[in-house]
Amino acid sequence: MNHASFVQAENARVDTGRHGRCGFPEVIFCEGKTASEVASISVVLAHTAGVVLGTRASRQQFDAVTAVLPEAVFHERARCITWNQANASSDNGKVAVVCAGTSDAPVAGEAVVTLETFGVEAMLITDVGVAGIHRLLAARDDINACDVIIVVAGMEGALPGVVAGLVEKPVIAVPTSVGYGANFGGLAALLGMLNSCGSGVTVVNIDNGFGAAYAAATITRLLHRK
Amino acid sequence: MNHASFVQAENARVDTGRHGRCGFPEVIFCEGKTASEVASISVVLAHTAGVVLGTRASRQQFDAVTAVLPEAVFHERARCITWNQANASSDNGKVAVVCAGTSDAPVAGEAVVTLETFGVEAMLITDVGVAGIHRLLAARDDINACDVIIVVAGMEGALPGVVAGLVEKPVIAVPTSVGYGANFGGLAALLGMLNSCGSGVTVVNIDNGFGAAYAAATITRLLHRK
Amino acid sequence: MNHASFVQAENARVDTGRHGRCGFPEVIFCEGKTASEVASISVVLAHTAGVVLGTRASRQQFDAVTAVLPEAVFHERARCITWNQANASSDNGKVAVVCAGTSDAPVAGEAVVTLETFGVEAMLITDVGVAGIHRLLAARDDINACDVIIVVAGMEGALPGVVAGLVEKPVIAVPTSVGYGANFGGLAALLGMLNSCGSGVTVVNIDNGFGAAYAAATITRLLHRK
Amino acid sequence: MNHASFVQAENARVDTGRHGRCGFPEVIFCEGKTASEVASISVVLAHTAGVVLGTRASRQQFDAVTAVLPEAVFHERARCITWNQANASSDNGKVAVVCAGTSDAPVAGEAVVTLETFGVEAMLITDVGVAGIHRLLAARDDINACDVIIVVAGMEGALPGVVAGLVEKPVIAVPTSVGYGANFGGLAALLGMLNSCGSGVTVVNIDNGFGAAYAAATITRLLHRK
Amino acid sequence: MNHASFVQAENARVDTGRHGRCGFPEVIFCEGKTASEVASISVVLAHTAGVVLGTRASRQQFDAVTAVLPEAVFHERARCITWNQANASSDNGKVAVVCAGTSDAPVAGEAVVTLETFGVEAMLITDVGVAGIHRLLAARDDINACDVIIVVAGMEGALPGVVAGLVEKPVIAVPTSVGYGANFGGLAALLGMLNSCGSGVTVVNIDNGFGAAYAAATITRLLHRK
Amino acid sequence: MNHASFVQAENARVDTGRHGRCGFPEVIFCEGKTASEVASISVVLAHTAGVVLGTRASRQQFDAVTAVLPEAVFHERARCITWNQANASSDNGKVAVVCAGTSDAPVAGEAVVTLETFGVEAMLITDVGVAGIHRLLAARDDINACDVIIVVAGMEGALPGVVAGLVEKPVIAVPTSVGYGANFGGLAALLGMLNSCGSGVTVVNIDNGFGAAYAAATITRLLHRK
Amino acid sequence: MNHASFVQAENARVDTGRHGRCGFPEVIFCEGKTASEVASISVVLAHTAGVVLGTRASRQQFDAVTAVLPEAVFHERARCITWNQANASSDNGKVAVVCAGTSDAPVAGEAVVTLETFGVEAMLITDVGVAGIHRLLAARDDINACDVIIVVAGMEGALPGVVAGLVEKPVIAVPTSVGYGANFGGLAALLGMLNSCGSGVTVVNIDNGFGAAYAAATITRLLHRK
Amino acid sequence: MNHASFVQAENARVDTGRHGRCGFPEVIFCEGKTASEVASISVVLAHTAGVVLGTRASRQQFDAVTAVLPEAVFHERARCITWNQANASSDNGKVAVVCAGTSDAPVAGEAVVTLETFGVEAMLITDVGVAGIHRLLAARDDINACDVIIVVAGMEGALPGVVAGLVEKPVIAVPTSVGYGANFGGLAALLGMLNSCGSGVTVVNIDNGFGAAYAAATITRLLHRK
Repeated sequence: MNHASFVQAENARVDTGRHGRCGFPEVIFCEGKTASEVASISVVLAHTAGVVLGTRASRQQFDAVTAVLPEAVFHERARCITWNQANASSDNGKVAVVCAGTSDAPVAGEAVVTLETFGVEAMLITDVGVAGIHRLLAARDDINACDVIIVVAGMEGALPGVVAGLVEKPVIAVPTSVGYGANFGGLAALLGMLNSCGSGVTVVNIDNGFGAAYAAATITRLLHRK
Repeated sequence: MNHASFVQAENARVDTGRHGRCGFPEVIFCEGKTASEVASISVVLAHTAGVVLGTRASRQQFDAVTAVLPEAVFHERARCITWNQANASSDNGKVAVVCAGTSDAPVAGEAVVTLETFGVEAMLITDVGVAGIHRLLAARDDINACDVIIVVAGMEGALPGVVAGLVEKPVIAVPTSVGYGANFGGLAALLGMLNSCGSGVTVVNIDNGFGAAYAAATITRLLHRK
Repeated sequence: MNHASFVQAENARVDTGRHGRCGFPEVIFCEGKTASEVASISVVLAHTAGVVLGTRASRQQFDAVTAVLPEAVFHERARCITWNQANASSDNGKVAVVCAGTSDAPVAGEAVVTLETFGVEAMLITDVGVAGIHRLLAARDDINACDVIIVVAGMEGALPGVVAGLVEKPVIAVPTSVGYGANFGGLAALLGMLNSCGSGVTVVNIDNGFGAAYAAATITRLLHRK
Repeated sequence: MNHASFVQAENARVDTGRHGRCGFPEVIFCEGKTASEVASISVVLAHTAGVVLGTRASRQQFDAVTAVLPEAVFHERARCITWNQANASSDNGKVAVVCAGTSDAPVAGEAVVTLETFGVEAMLITDVGVAGIHRLLAARDDINACDVIIVVAGMEGALPGVVAGLVEKPVIAVPTSVGYGANFGGLAALLGMLNSCGSGVTVVNIDNGFGAAYAAATITRLLHRK
Repeated sequence: MNHASFVQAENARVDTGRHGRCGFPEVIFCEGKTASEVASISVVLAHTAGVVLGTRASRQQFDAVTAVLPEAVFHERARCITWNQANASSDNGKVAVVCAGTSDAPVAGEAVVTLETFGVEAMLITDVGVAGIHRLLAARDDINACDVIIVVAGMEGALPGVVAGLVEKPVIAVPTSVGYGANFGGLAALLGMLNSCGSGVTVVNIDNGFGAAYAAATITRLLHRK
Repeated sequence: MNHASFVQAENARVDTGRHGRCGFPEVIFCEGKTASEVASISVVLAHTAGVVLGTRASRQQFDAVTAVLPEAVFHERARCITWNQANASSDNGKVAVVCAGTSDAPVAGEAVVTLETFGVEAMLITDVGVAGIHRLLAARDDINACDVIIVVAGMEGALPGVVAGLVEKPVIAVPTSVGYGANFGGLAALLGMLNSCGSGVTVVNIDNGFGAAYAAATITRLLHRK
Repeated sequence: MNHASFVQAENARVDTGRHGRCGFPEVIFCEGKTASEVASISVVLAHTAGVVLGTRASRQQFDAVTAVLPEAVFHERARCITWNQANASSDNGKVAVVCAGTSDAPVAGEAVVTLETFGVEAMLITDVGVAGIHRLLAARDDINACDVIIVVAGMEGALPGVVAGLVEKPVIAVPTSVGYGANFGGLAALLGMLNSCGSGVTVVNIDNGFGAAYAAATITRLLHRK
Repeated sequence: MNHASFVQAENARVDTGRHGRCGFPEVIFCEGKTASEVASISVVLAHTAGVVLGTRASRQQFDAVTAVLPEAVFHERARCITWNQANASSDNGKVAVVCAGTSDAPVAGEAVVTLETFGVEAMLITDVGVAGIHRLLAARDDINACDVIIVVAGMEGALPGVVAGLVEKPVIAVPTSVGYGANFGGLAALLGMLNSCGSGVTVVNIDNGFGAAYAAATITRLLHRK
């Protein structure tokens, strides 16, 4: 397929050449699209790319997709729709998804679903916030055994900096909008992570578990293609 | 002396009753005052309170003070002027001033000078940022042996939360304006500290080493009066 | 119990060593957790720490807790769940919770419930805003008789500075998100308090009654252990 | 003179009809204008309005004005240039200019110079911040004897609300950019004043002593014309 | 009645001395109070001040008030509850309430109700935004015949500056939260008004029709007491 | 009709002279108006201008309009009401409305409806975001054949700058509030567009499809009047 | 010349195909470039495009340019460097540059220099702020006789909306960073202009006189090519 | 050397175990440190790690370092000090540093110096902004041949998203503080990058060329160790 090709679906030009150019197929950001548009794009992607991933999806959108792709799956807490033509090979490396608190679970879930859709193994480690640093130290070896580390944290934007000081793997930080008062919808966590003194931390947008997983998969693919 | 009394100095009403009401004499915030005004207020405080502390002071302001109070001392990096009628007793407890990096030294210095002016012993512990957490763990027992802990941190607003998870003493956090890019003059550190998941952390204004020391001294005085 | 221990509950690593390290058991921040997760963590804390405190709790979460801990109590306005194995001793000092207006009651309530859970006596003084300063002056002696003063204020971020100028005890300020227009969810009150010229004021996050109470209890415990 | 008239000066259309329409002549905001432009406008205003007031003026601009209007006066700290054809009558009421700290003096000075230029008596009361509330209470009767009260405050945005709770006269608040850290160039004081619970407070822009004085003079002129 | 007196209602200290100190009785800010608290405070004010004004009131709160004060009135769009022992004299001057658009009606309504409760005549002039400046010019004489002018504007923060350039009366501006996109809940209008080049404009908080009316009434009372 | 005329509708002064002054009739911003007010203004505009356009309209408001103007049309996704006395001539040029994603459709729709109401042909091109730049390059000639280009983009504030580098026509950018986390209601897209290095881009308010269309029509009218 | 061509200068790829693609040659944004880089790019543009425009230039950069292009001109207040191979034809239409105050002159100057470099006639109208609306009304016919109107305003973001309500030509607004206190470097003016109720206003970045002129020239070129 | 070891230098605890834990030695952030402190830390790092990298360095700090480490090098534009015991092997992969404009050179330089210090080959590609997209397309194959891509962009936060849509390698974005008006010190570029629709982009702090290089080197080291 041509790397610059696209297919016209309902109100959308599906970028079917993306897999060739960027290594992964296009993904559907469902928020703001009608259920019918999501279903229409899903069918195009199923036929051209063999895999469908919809993020920020509602159950109503899932119902429309399942009508045309019956094997589609809905991940409720992570708010994702997935459909795979065949089981993805999982020989694409391993990524740790580290989580400061139970409340960050939906964002971490989006990262895990995305990784698995791309054939990357995900190891979820929850509740290792810096207020009880021994819980993190206990998990240190498991974390460092992965290729890349995604750190999801809300109130506690501190966690990625601490993790980066303990391991020698790339650390991708996801600020979340969870928190009291002056968190300002995740801004506090975002700024904290950007200012993290732990070298080597990079950051994605607030609540963007998908983006972190995509970036992580870009790295593991390089590693495991060799 | 009456608790509601004051004395008229050049362009200023010096609150000479403050010591009686609040336990500490009034302190001079020098920024924006003329050298002559600072000197004039210093004389009033020297005579009524027996102790002078000027923060955010310039050398020019110090020169004016030293002309009328020859024993006054200038703390250059901390930007403070001090003058004590007699050596303050130092039986007022001990406060740890913990510092993430060398760059935070001026703010930490302001805290140390303030504590010592109020007769409180200060223990300065520098360069224990979270990116190398073992440096902090090594200092843990020293820190916990103090009555109160002041944590000064810029880029790394994370430090107070980590400290608070390790000790059982009150932790007062001072964000500083040191840092790269999206630190926004200390805003990132401030928000990080306010959102710190480590319970028991309270926060003062950006770069306000004085305020943290004052609050700490309020606590140690209660402890050591008994 | 080991200070670095933890117990695995549903989706959570409960920090059972926290009491030993920090002097108080871990507390459950309920927002964003499922009812089942809150109940599961509550049971672990009941058995290991003998006391349960859940903040930002919903009635639905309380129903799940009460199914496993029948004596649990729900404080509706303060949005807290509590459960105590035995009546906490109350010989841990006394804290004033001073409130600018009736609208700040939920946040003040969270502070009061937290203090009482930790065995600290709480004295609630409401409706003493600075627009009618005589109401505050009338309560001054009662306030100054406490060990620590928590000041909760929304529109009127001015109150902590005025209180700190009248007493010689530590003052902890809690900005609230109550108010007209340019309050920006408590930001105005927060900035006002940080800039308070009354020395000795420290600040916690917006609406964080729990954090203020925790910090206050850290101080009273030091005082009354002697 | 026609109320909609204007005169062309160097790079400026001087609104000579303003006195007729609004009760006061046009005033020169000097910042960003060349010395020559300020002098040119001053001459037009001297001839048409009989009074010149330039705010935010530099000494260099004053030198240009004094070359053409030798009796012009420079108020250094207030950064104002004034020139009056004849002594303004001062039977236009009295305004209190209340000041939290010495550091707010330049802004308060701009207000005083403006009032006097408009023939309004100004009473300056400095250093009555809320951290020592007795200093304010001592000045209460003097303040309430004026027609209007201007309150200038930086760190301490609280002062106008407290004053408004003590008097029955209009209170106009001027936030200043003086202060530590999270003052953000006066934003903290501005937000504090807007959220002031003391009813009847209105606010002008940060450091805008002129605007407050102009508004106050608009009120006293109504009062004393009767 | 003593100027520093207060009465204890349900969860509230009603400032019954406020009328003596400030010229107007206390007003109830209903948001965040229970219906029962609003009713309880209303009864105290009815008995001590003879007039009740509740702003930001809900119908549920009104129902509780009407149960104890049957003649109370609910102003739905303005969200105010009022009760007057006797018809207020209306010999207290006249205030224009000028409105940029229909959408600003609720805030303008709060101002009108407040003025009338305080016995001040209100003249409402709507839909005179600057995009059709001739509509404003047509109303100019009516506006200038009032003692004070309140200008309510959302998108169009420009209106107060234009009005202030046309009249010689005090202008009080109320920014509203109405508007498209980058209005940020009234922030754009607020900043626009603060930066208004029209001298003599003062500003109150976003959507604070009450505050503007209170300030206006403070001025008209001075004028008409003479 | 006089250019400075207006007609009084329910709570509104309809600016009937606007067409003569500005080239287009007044348009109704429906948000915050009652259904009855919208209908009343619609009737005045239908009679005086021969065309009605209501933006940000609800179905309830449309029902009120259709009761008095039965041929009125409701554009659901664009949230617009339109009514035309006669089919507008469409000889007023052609405008491209370029859209980064499906989610921006409502804002693009408001632009299209506005253009058509003003007799300008609109060409809608969707889903040409910069992440798949070939889709944009494929549409380049179609875009450049229009008189003016409106670019609507949310997450991807980058699109207008890229378009402006490819064409020689005026580019008007509309930021939308669609997007993840740190988009802050369109602020990120707005700032991105303002900082666009592509010369010749101008920007309207967030989500303001109407404003962009109005500005575009102002340009095409000049072109096609010649 | 190929529309996609470029030439390598010192540290820069000069986009020599830009004239063909976008209708105007590339322009040099001088801030942050060394004098030598500016001179090197100027030479390339002089040879390929026959016209050089450098904005935000310093005198030092000009000195380097004049060494290699002796006829280059420095516009000091506008901070621009220009060099034209031949006098540009001026048959490219006429643009009004309307200015609220003398202080906005540098930004207005940048717009005028840019227009003239592109062969467009510029008519500068200064000092017509909304506080004296009659000055603007007097200039109305002159303004409306131009093809496009650029409105430059700082404190007074109101001006573009008022102008747009008076004329039927495209209005491009430039916010400037001039102003008192809460102007926040032009943010207040920017937000005011974006929220302007005058339809048809589009906005460029703060202080970006160049961008406004470029956009205006894009429109006049369309008009005068016919 | 022990992974948790450190050495006490002047006012600093040098984290000598960092190389073992994180794969790279500690780096000196010079801003805010005295020249003497920088020199003292440099000596410790030279002896323990065999490599010294100081960022945000001044010439004065370099002079102090060169006195003790004569072979140290100063990179003026990049503001870095480097010293290597031996030439680092360069068999650690290759990173593209892509730059929107000449003005971003200092930040790009910091990235290049950091990469080379860590033994990673850096390929600098300047002046490929999105306003002339053909310049970027021409460099596409060179870029995609690298292991990781760092994109440095100021005004034009759009570039990383466009690059990520063209290549299949990890993209790390660095916003810079270069730009006009509403760039707000890099905030606009930062937000634009975070909202970039190009999947796989991660972001570091404003102007943080070092951090991007560090993160990139973490990835290339994994690749080339295999």
